[in-house]
Amino acid sequence: MKRKLVTFGEILMRLSCEDHLRFSQAHTFNVVYGGSEANVAISASNFGMSVDFVSVVPHTDFGNASLAELKISKVGTDNIVFRGKRLGLYFLEKGAVNRGSKVIYDRANSSFAEVKSEWFDWEDILKNCNQFHWSGITPAISKAAAEVCLEAVETAEKMGISISADLNYRGNLWQYDVIPEEIMTNLVSKSNVLLAGGYACKQFFGIQTQNSSNLELFEELTQKFPKLEKIAITNRIEMNASHHKWSANLYNGKTILNSTEYDIFPIVDRVGTGDSFMGALLYGLQHYEDQQALDFATAASCIKHSIYGDINRVSKEEVVKLMEGDISGRISR
Amino acid sequence: MKRKLVTFGEILMRLSCEDHLRFSQAHTFNVVYGGSEANVAISASNFGMSVDFVSVVPHTDFGNASLAELKISKVGTDNIVFRGKRLGLYFLEKGAVNRGSKVIYDRANSSFAEVKSEWFDWEDILKNCNQFHWSGITPAISKAAAEVCLEAVETAEKMGISISADLNYRGNLWQYDVIPEEIMTNLVSKSNVLLAGGYACKQFFGIQTQNSSNLELFEELTQKFPKLEKIAITNRIEMNASHHKWSANLYNGKTILNSTEYDIFPIVDRVGTGDSFMGALLYGLQHYEDQQALDFATAASCIKHSIYGDINRVSKEEVVKLMEGDISGRISR
Amino acid sequence: MKRKLVTFGEILMRLSCEDHLRFSQAHTFNVVYGGSEANVAISASNFGMSVDFVSVVPHTDFGNASLAELKISKVGTDNIVFRGKRLGLYFLEKGAVNRGSKVIYDRANSSFAEVKSEWFDWEDILKNCNQFHWSGITPAISKAAAEVCLEAVETAEKMGISISADLNYRGNLWQYDVIPEEIMTNLVSKSNVLLAGGYACKQFFGIQTQNSSNLELFEELTQKFPKLEKIAITNRIEMNASHHKWSANLYNGKTILNSTEYDIFPIVDRVGTGDSFMGALLYGLQHYEDQQALDFATAASCIKHSIYGDINRVSKEEVVKLMEGDISGRISR
Amino acid sequence: MKRKLVTFGEILMRLSCEDHLRFSQAHTFNVVYGGSEANVAISASNFGMSVDFVSVVPHTDFGNASLAELKISKVGTDNIVFRGKRLGLYFLEKGAVNRGSKVIYDRANSSFAEVKSEWFDWEDILKNCNQFHWSGITPAISKAAAEVCLEAVETAEKMGISISADLNYRGNLWQYDVIPEEIMTNLVSKSNVLLAGGYACKQFFGIQTQNSSNLELFEELTQKFPKLEKIAITNRIEMNASHHKWSANLYNGKTILNSTEYDIFPIVDRVGTGDSFMGALLYGLQHYEDQQALDFATAASCIKHSIYGDINRVSKEEVVKLMEGDISGRISR
Amino acid sequence: MKRKLVTFGEILMRLSCEDHLRFSQAHTFNVVYGGSEANVAISASNFGMSVDFVSVVPHTDFGNASLAELKISKVGTDNIVFRGKRLGLYFLEKGAVNRGSKVIYDRANSSFAEVKSEWFDWEDILKNCNQFHWSGITPAISKAAAEVCLEAVETAEKMGISISADLNYRGNLWQYDVIPEEIMTNLVSKSNVLLAGGYACKQFFGIQTQNSSNLELFEELTQKFPKLEKIAITNRIEMNASHHKWSANLYNGKTILNSTEYDIFPIVDRVGTGDSFMGALLYGLQHYEDQQALDFATAASCIKHSIYGDINRVSKEEVVKLMEGDISGRISR
Amino acid sequence: MKRKLVTFGEILMRLSCEDHLRFSQAHTFNVVYGGSEANVAISASNFGMSVDFVSVVPHTDFGNASLAELKISKVGTDNIVFRGKRLGLYFLEKGAVNRGSKVIYDRANSSFAEVKSEWFDWEDILKNCNQFHWSGITPAISKAAAEVCLEAVETAEKMGISISADLNYRGNLWQYDVIPEEIMTNLVSKSNVLLAGGYACKQFFGIQTQNSSNLELFEELTQKFPKLEKIAITNRIEMNASHHKWSANLYNGKTILNSTEYDIFPIVDRVGTGDSFMGALLYGLQHYEDQQALDFATAASCIKHSIYGDINRVSKEEVVKLMEGDISGRISR
Repeated sequence: MKRKLVTFGEILMRLSCEDHLRFSQAHTFNVVYGGSEANVAISASNFGMSVDFVSVVPHTDFGNASLAELKISKVGTDNIVFRGKRLGLYFLEKGAVNRGSKVIYDRANSSFAEVKSEWFDWEDILKNCNQFHWSGITPAISKAAAEVCLEAVETAEKMGISISADLNYRGNLWQYDVIPEEIMTNLVSKSNVLLAGGYACKQFFGIQTQNSSNLELFEELTQKFPKLEKIAITNRIEMNASHHKWSANLYNGKTILNSTEYDIFPIVDRVGTGDSFMGALLYGLQHYEDQQALDFATAASCIKHSIYGDINRVSKEEVVKLMEGDISGRISR
Repeated sequence: MKRKLVTFGEILMRLSCEDHLRFSQAHTFNVVYGGSEANVAISASNFGMSVDFVSVVPHTDFGNASLAELKISKVGTDNIVFRGKRLGLYFLEKGAVNRGSKVIYDRANSSFAEVKSEWFDWEDILKNCNQFHWSGITPAISKAAAEVCLEAVETAEKMGISISADLNYRGNLWQYDVIPEEIMTNLVSKSNVLLAGGYACKQFFGIQTQNSSNLELFEELTQKFPKLEKIAITNRIEMNASHHKWSANLYNGKTILNSTEYDIFPIVDRVGTGDSFMGALLYGLQHYEDQQALDFATAASCIKHSIYGDINRVSKEEVVKLMEGDISGRISR
Repeated sequence: MKRKLVTFGEILMRLSCEDHLRFSQAHTFNVVYGGSEANVAISASNFGMSVDFVSVVPHTDFGNASLAELKISKVGTDNIVFRGKRLGLYFLEKGAVNRGSKVIYDRANSSFAEVKSEWFDWEDILKNCNQFHWSGITPAISKAAAEVCLEAVETAEKMGISISADLNYRGNLWQYDVIPEEIMTNLVSKSNVLLAGGYACKQFFGIQTQNSSNLELFEELTQKFPKLEKIAITNRIEMNASHHKWSANLYNGKTILNSTEYDIFPIVDRVGTGDSFMGALLYGLQHYEDQQALDFATAASCIKHSIYGDINRVSKEEVVKLMEGDISGRISR
Repeated sequence: MKRKLVTFGEILMRLSCEDHLRFSQAHTFNVVYGGSEANVAISASNFGMSVDFVSVVPHTDFGNASLAELKISKVGTDNIVFRGKRLGLYFLEKGAVNRGSKVIYDRANSSFAEVKSEWFDWEDILKNCNQFHWSGITPAISKAAAEVCLEAVETAEKMGISISADLNYRGNLWQYDVIPEEIMTNLVSKSNVLLAGGYACKQFFGIQTQNSSNLELFEELTQKFPKLEKIAITNRIEMNASHHKWSANLYNGKTILNSTEYDIFPIVDRVGTGDSFMGALLYGLQHYEDQQALDFATAASCIKHSIYGDINRVSKEEVVKLMEGDISGRISR
Repeated sequence: MKRKLVTFGEILMRLSCEDHLRFSQAHTFNVVYGGSEANVAISASNFGMSVDFVSVVPHTDFGNASLAELKISKVGTDNIVFRGKRLGLYFLEKGAVNRGSKVIYDRANSSFAEVKSEWFDWEDILKNCNQFHWSGITPAISKAAAEVCLEAVETAEKMGISISADLNYRGNLWQYDVIPEEIMTNLVSKSNVLLAGGYACKQFFGIQTQNSSNLELFEELTQKFPKLEKIAITNRIEMNASHHKWSANLYNGKTILNSTEYDIFPIVDRVGTGDSFMGALLYGLQHYEDQQALDFATAASCIKHSIYGDINRVSKEEVVKLMEGDISGRISR
Repeated sequence: MKRKLVTFGEILMRLSCEDHLRFSQAHTFNVVYGGSEANVAISASNFGMSVDFVSVVPHTDFGNASLAELKISKVGTDNIVFRGKRLGLYFLEKGAVNRGSKVIYDRANSSFAEVKSEWFDWEDILKNCNQFHWSGITPAISKAAAEVCLEAVETAEKMGISISADLNYRGNLWQYDVIPEEIMTNLVSKSNVLLAGGYACKQFFGIQTQNSSNLELFEELTQKFPKLEKIAITNRIEMNASHHKWSANLYNGKTILNSTEYDIFPIVDRVGTGDSFMGALLYGLQHYEDQQALDFATAASCIKHSIYGDINRVSKEEVVKLMEGDISGRISR
């Protein structure tokens, strides 16, 4: 039986200041690698799924290094293409209290941005796959990336593979000549599972809702994209940069499910928390009923806020313990 | 006049990840040394008591290094035996928010675990002592350690020395062929001062209480161990790994005394906080009335939560300032 | 048009322990440079004002290094005198929760403390200046410093330059033979803008007020120092060393203005927050109405609590964003 | 065609002091993982060979972490067994000039030391293997390890697989009841490729040679172990802890081949240099004539002296460049 | 009298691995900023010259940060243009012994590469200038950069300003459609002072010389570029990556002058050593006779090898001390 | 039998830059504590002598911290007086190759400099002492320090205790109104063992010798100071800051003994190497014949060059191994 998750996207080098130093104070940067779809891949693999990550990285020391975490987590890397000149970068200054974190992207002209259609044989790549995952970052990177993403989605659709997406709106990308709504509508219309968000829906599809509940948004999305079977939304209430409240909803076309709300304070690293939700949700939907899947994903992503880096280094056991209500953070010895 | 405190137990090397890194992310470990009874010794010495620590460490660079903090704090080390092959270790991953801290012990077959009775002349060691302290960790380590601990306690009892104990239940120890209840009952029955805890009492003695107040537990303990003159319990409410509420009770056979409850957030290092309470309580009981002794111990251990390492590096003046109600944490300059 | 701010005072090397380590645990110190009047200078310059800092530093590598941040921020350093033997130092141990931070000054006999009147031609220094700023730390350092400060203030007064002051009471200074009240009364009586504080007013001028509101204090100060046009007070409520509430008032001789109260938790570095308020207030008073000036200064200094070092590294845009009510600390990417 | 190298041995956590600090000065340890046979596996894999590493590690965070470098380097880990209680450790203090480096082993009772025969199906493990590699460290660890090592060697012999060995004499191991000569003679007599050494040969086999040349030793070994087809010896001249001269010889039963002698100063990390020679030799013998294989192995291990950690992170291209005579260490940009 | 040095070129962020770690081992990068012409500017300014650096940097935190060192060293930055999207980067892995250092450039599409002619009014920029300096890196970056460089050189020539150049051949640049020889010939033909090199002369001009002495090269250059008044060559003999021999020659059209040869071992940081020679030579030629100028430049650049970063942080006094023969490196206290 | 060594002098906080960073590059300082006479005390104690260190430190966290290393090494600290305001400091920038190390003293007005005669009862302090040691740094610090040093020396002389001295000429000290020759002549004339040096002898006593051998100097010293029984000189040949040759001579009034010459490269930390010689010589003279004592002291101080900090952390066994000729720096494992 085919049980492989395949994700497709860009992986970046992240250079972050120590502690809460500002960029202007940084004499060292800490280095990790991550990217939305790679983060999803690793999350799902850490819970035991069979996962493949498809990407393009340059044939340099940094291209190689970007794959280390995937290999350690047993994510397949055989379909990663070594081409082009540079790995995309992003710089991260970690805020605190009323000073927000700051990201400076330096990813233009990356190997991934210059991806070519002929480098991938999607039918072959997806041959053992039962879930294909993409995010809104990929079509935002470049025309080429958008086209390859569409080819992947179309192939998956043709092969009857379930398709999941994270809208992931990034206003600073989408720099090429494109109407985001068109391409995103096309891509989402072929997808079955969606991680949405009010702001992204407004930016991408002009959907505006008034109720504080997410139900209206779920209904509009379902109407617009009839193939969607499950839609999730994470609710982040930002008290300040160090303190968030975190919960999520899952909609299955009929009912709206609610998760516990977690109070997260002080946050260690919020980058990648959405991806950790997505990775855990994909795992959850294959192993649990919907409510449990939602609870699993919310708990997993809650814990991610306490973990340095883009990647959720957490075990299934740890997630289950929190999901079952133990918020004590008790020392285990 | 005899006024020396003698404590007996194992001292370990602690290897902890930086900040909140997980074990799998650690490229460096920070090194300190500590152990419950050594921590008590240093705490008491820092407040001005005359203290001796008795232990076994290997004749290696690490055996020597483990004693540095004791020497700096003027704790006597003349009765520490240099024997055996290895210093016990433990690894510490510091959690945050809903992710708990994690300890991996690597202390089997340590020099201390292979302690021999003939290495200690307890009558000589205790000759200027008026307080002997042991904890439930020592008999849990090995049969040999339990036996030597009992010899020490029996000698102290015979010499009329006050005996104090911290139950310190550690489920992962007690790996040898033993009924913990038997040996602990024997040891506690000879003791006069006890730092107890609801969970430990249940595990060791099967005592189960229903009230949220600690009174019932105090009464059961007093009944079971008539020699006990003072029993203390610390109350830790774990909001999450970063946020605890902390208070304590002291029972003198008649009345139950309550301390202030401190709200501790964000915690810097919670390891050794119980020991810091014990060390301060032993100091307090010799220098104050009971209520003040309790307040001193609670305040001292509250501050420990803000100090890196196993050891409470705090002055008597700092404790008194907090004990008298100044929780402002005002900068002194 | 003259639009230059000139500040006069001492700049120090600050040696701080890593994280929350105690002095006794420190194997490294982090090094930055700062001082109340230099901090004000840099803050104002970062918002776009033309600023000059006047001081004395030794002709050593550390004297030079102390000026780097000023030069980077385009603060003029042409009137800094290179003389004397040593740069003043201070050591900082950063507290947490119920353990306060601790400063050990080591600034006696510094180059600045041995300042000489003949090193400065104040008429020349102040020729393009429209605002001269001093603080209560300078006359506290030494008789010589107090005298030169007075000369500067007198020259500014004679030249019709607006004079601002921060009372900055430091009980551990004022070590020479002096009556602080006399010299401070003389200096403040020539000043037009004041950053005051209840404790400092009591120590310096014996002013004691009963109301929880600052109005009474403002009125007493206005009466005593009729030249004062604007008086500000910052209100710091210390929940503990990691958690403060922060607001401010501004009085223009008639009405008392209130700022937003910010909840700041967890604090990254509270040293220099008062200076960041002062620098922003001087900017604000030249560019805004009073209420906005107060709001700008309060928001700027709120953010300073999240920034390592003595200096407020924040842009006008970041301050305005918070001042306009966005406390979310949202990540910008 | 079978072209896989399989190596079998223990992998350890290495904890090393920063820079040249002594153990007594260490407040942090740097962490890497390594072990003779794992190092050989990674070296060979980095040059492009298909490699499998067989071992036992505990089912803990450290057991998992010890495999990261293998996975990153594409060494197969499917035959690694997760059992037992602890990962072996060693501590490293790096000397300089006339102060030698110091290793403290803490590997007794490790998961590997308690290996069990039934955990491995050697016929299956070796089914695609054409080279099996072991070292003298494995039989030195414990009786159990020696037995499993012998089973592996016997199976390989039976399956007609070439067997290589590194004598790797470690006097501090061999702590169980054993005559090292017996077991080593048995194991080496079945091997075809040997990395020997004068001191090891004397300790293990009582072979003592007088000439400064290695020819006599080669001849004695060939006579004693007729199956040996290739014997290599590395020649390390220790000027002091920071400065070595490094060369090697290879003997094919008839002639003795000599490598270049490299002057290595200052050494960055000498641990694992022998293993880097072995790994490169195994690669070389499959891809080159003998002289080139020797030159390749000597150059590869020369470069290892400049690389931190147990593992030789060097590309084939870099080795070839040095092997062809470019010792300039010219910057590439 | 006009006495200002103006240099024009790109400044980059440099990200280097700690110690001798390889890129694949790096979890942190150390950050400094530098670039050939900025390094020359700072060197000359540190010796007391009046200097201006002209460049383009993006209007980001990193654009600002790249100027800090210039400002600290009093290099004028008023003619630096804030435009474009990214600061160029380079990554540095520091070799040792027989492993060379490795640079990975990531500077394509930088703000400087997309420089525009209209951003600079060269007549105004050069109005107080008596020495204009450029290097062969600038025309190699992009067509736009080459054009602006030529405009600057032509303007300087027209204004009668002395022009200096460092050939600085970088094979990995020159990626646009260009014949390097043409543009370099044009630029050098207008220059008066040249830092050349045998390899660069061969690459750029096809000049090939046979003698080990540099005289022939000097004569060919003088013939080809009759405006050249002074030509210098540095002689680097690379024993290995840690050990160089370093000397230089200066030719004034008639005689060839020789410097001392320095034995530099172990090298701390060799990047920027050529620039430190150039900066010191420009200072020397204005303040000394030719032989002393050569000696000053050679000594200054010798010391640079012991200083971390791209920039030569050395005082005139320190250079003179070495130049006068004190190679002892005696501690000063 | 009296067998205690007592040393008297100042202990300082040392703040050194990381690696080879210049002061202007330092964002952190590493902290250790040391001082000539404390270093001697610890060296001798580490070899097994009974030692007491006498000094004055302030009653601050830094005064306490300065004693930690003494306590760890079992040097007696009971006669250290806690008085005054500040601990002396010194800053250290570590040179390399042709750039020398740089020390900036900041020790004026320290607690020790303001020592008072009445704080010490020398007869009591020296009651179990058989060797009193002082160095030329102490009388150089202040008039008060010189007077107390003289009192100590006079008391020791009166009590028949052997007196040793290290001339330790520091030109930057001796800032008070004094003729160094007078006081040094007085002090040395009462001493029995001397560590001298050609430069110090010239500065202090005007002794100038012409021969490259030290014999003439020994003879002049013996003539001038007839009480001297043993005089040692260390010979440091500074190839450059990273590379020294190191040997020593000992003169017993009749013959001159020579040590091995060690080639030390690259030096880790040269501060305190003279003190390590002195401490080992005092041990050696009590336990060996003169030649061996010299060899022991030279070997011990050779090793000190490889150890970070002021203090020689080396065991007697390690010294003996080198002293017996093993310069290989072989790894011990």
